[in-house]
Amino acid sequence: MIIDCHGHYTTVAKEVQAFRDAQIVGLSRGDSPKLPQISDDQIRESVQPQLAFQAARGTDLTIFSPRASSMGHHLGDAAANQQWARLCNDLIHRVCTLFPKQFVGVCQLPQTVSGSPAECIGEVERCVKELGFIGCNLNPDPSGGHWASPPLTDRAWYPLYEKLVELDVPAMVHVSASCNPNFHATGAHYLNADTTAFMQFLTGDLFKDFPTLRMVIPHGGGAVPYHWGRYRGLAQDMKRPPLTDLIRDNVFFDTCVYHYPGIELLLKVVPIDNVLFGSETVGAVRGIDPETGHYFDDTKRYIDQVPSLNADEKRKIFELNARKVYPRISPLIDRAAPAPQPAV
Amino acid sequence: MIIDCHGHYTTVAKEVQAFRDAQIVGLSRGDSPKLPQISDDQIRESVQPQLAFQAARGTDLTIFSPRASSMGHHLGDAAANQQWARLCNDLIHRVCTLFPKQFVGVCQLPQTVSGSPAECIGEVERCVKELGFIGCNLNPDPSGGHWASPPLTDRAWYPLYEKLVELDVPAMVHVSASCNPNFHATGAHYLNADTTAFMQFLTGDLFKDFPTLRMVIPHGGGAVPYHWGRYRGLAQDMKRPPLTDLIRDNVFFDTCVYHYPGIELLLKVVPIDNVLFGSETVGAVRGIDPETGHYFDDTKRYIDQVPSLNADEKRKIFELNARKVYPRISPLIDRAAPAPQPAV
Repeated sequence: MIIDCHGHYTTVAKEVQAFRDAQIVGLSRGDSPKLPQISDDQIRESVQPQLAFQAARGTDLTIFSPRASSMGHHLGDAAANQQWARLCNDLIHRVCTLFPKQFVGVCQLPQTVSGSPAECIGEVERCVKELGFIGCNLNPDPSGGHWASPPLTDRAWYPLYEKLVELDVPAMVHVSASCNPNFHATGAHYLNADTTAFMQFLTGDLFKDFPTLRMVIPHGGGAVPYHWGRYRGLAQDMKRPPLTDLIRDNVFFDTCVYHYPGIELLLKVVPIDNVLFGSETVGAVRGIDPETGHYFDDTKRYIDQVPSLNADEKRKIFELNARKVYPRISPLIDRAAPAPQPAV
Repeated sequence: MIIDCHGHYTTVAKEVQAFRDAQIVGLSRGDSPKLPQISDDQIRESVQPQLAFQAARGTDLTIFSPRASSMGHHLGDAAANQQWARLCNDLIHRVCTLFPKQFVGVCQLPQTVSGSPAECIGEVERCVKELGFIGCNLNPDPSGGHWASPPLTDRAWYPLYEKLVELDVPAMVHVSASCNPNFHATGAHYLNADTTAFMQFLTGDLFKDFPTLRMVIPHGGGAVPYHWGRYRGLAQDMKRPPLTDLIRDNVFFDTCVYHYPGIELLLKVVPIDNVLFGSETVGAVRGIDPETGHYFDDTKRYIDQVPSLNADEKRKIFELNARKVYPRISPLIDRAAPAPQPAV
């Protein structure tokens, strides 16, 4: 079984983004637009690109969340971002209901620049308990490139972590768009956030306080695996535990690295138990690599080419690690699986 | 010949940092401390660790600049940062004068949070013309982790670039300490800045306006080589030139990557003509790697192990690319070389 842990609903009907744009404009005018009415047919049609890629690449199931760059936590106030998160999460739920074999849900949080992470507890609880979601995307910088919130190891985040632990769901550390002109979203801000979060985890004692809290760092861990020696050395200089001990049960990287040498390095330096297959499809890079003739984001191809991986290791990357990090996925897979054939 | 393009004076006499600390405290009180008096013997003693590493690792010459984390452009006003840059640069000059075979100078700029890059022109001109320096360190974020300045492609930087082009000296894009609690300096802020700068260069037309401007991105290019496929794909999606064309004469990476798999990847994906040997010694990571028994930052060892590199390629990485990027180095090398022996 092939589980892609990192897919965003980037092909959602355009009425959805139009609503958000109108909602943000309305904030300053004191009015608010009507929620968009999206039909089941529109939803079916909108996920056809995802389904086509799944079929072409042999992916069985995508852990699916709202479009990351559209979360825009820096744009709205608490009420607007609550309404927006709820709308986006409900659409994910409808995708998962229409295609229960192909998608399971991960939710967007209604974070804000000045609000407390505790304000997200209600929505994550609703999504997990009522909609059957299995995780959330946590934005380490709701200010959108100004990095005005405390680090992820700060106690301000603890109420939300307590809920994640209670629900037994992980968070993917994922920023949204950047309103800082220094940071291109997918070419700088995303990777910087991954690198930043890892170093926060390395220097803090978060996982002593939450031994079962699990964080997925996307985009192959930002700069981290490439600089694994630097991080091993920094940990040693700072008298921190060895990296493999530090991340073992708590920090995981996806495989959203869009060329073979990068994937090869990732799987060489990071323990296989801490790597989850992901592609970020349909996502940041949409073209075909002229050097290979295949899509840049067809990351399964790169993994399949790594000669040192044995079948057990591949199964961990493609399935078992996702079942471990997202334990709520297993009942959904079993539910979606075809009923066993009666013995003849 | 082995030229290390990235060394900082991290072992400077402690009176120097004490002066800066007192200077910053004095800013709010309206007083200012006396400049520290550092003897030649103190300077000789302070660089012994550098000289010992050069000898042990077989490095001939280090391109040497003031300690990056101490630049602290976010701490002082224009006058204080001018005085501080001048002091630090004069100390580098004294090192280079005492050890002309082992060190050549690169200067710190007197940047400030709110000032214009044009205010740095006088100091870079003094350092190059009077002190014989061959480049400068340019901080893309003088706010120290708040990223409050315009991107490096913005015209606000152009007066400084005009001077760099006129003097024919490159800039290493190097941030200083972070006053944002989200960013660990050497574990996040440095690498993020490298990644950020590269993406600014990819999206902007800076090198159309300055075809001979050269930028060195340190720390192996941050996250960039690991995500080379992502950047190739983003450039293609954005109808930008291919990366190799985009960087050819203008953007260079050093080899400050502290493990073999990282160096192997760097040299596999980035054109050899765009890689300069660097170690950041004595720097960010000071320990010995228990997996190899050698210093993490002994990056020459990793390069020497890459089987695919031929002698010409190694010579480019270790010497010729540095001569190309820092053309003012060649007369200094020739001056420092022993006089040719008369024919017997």
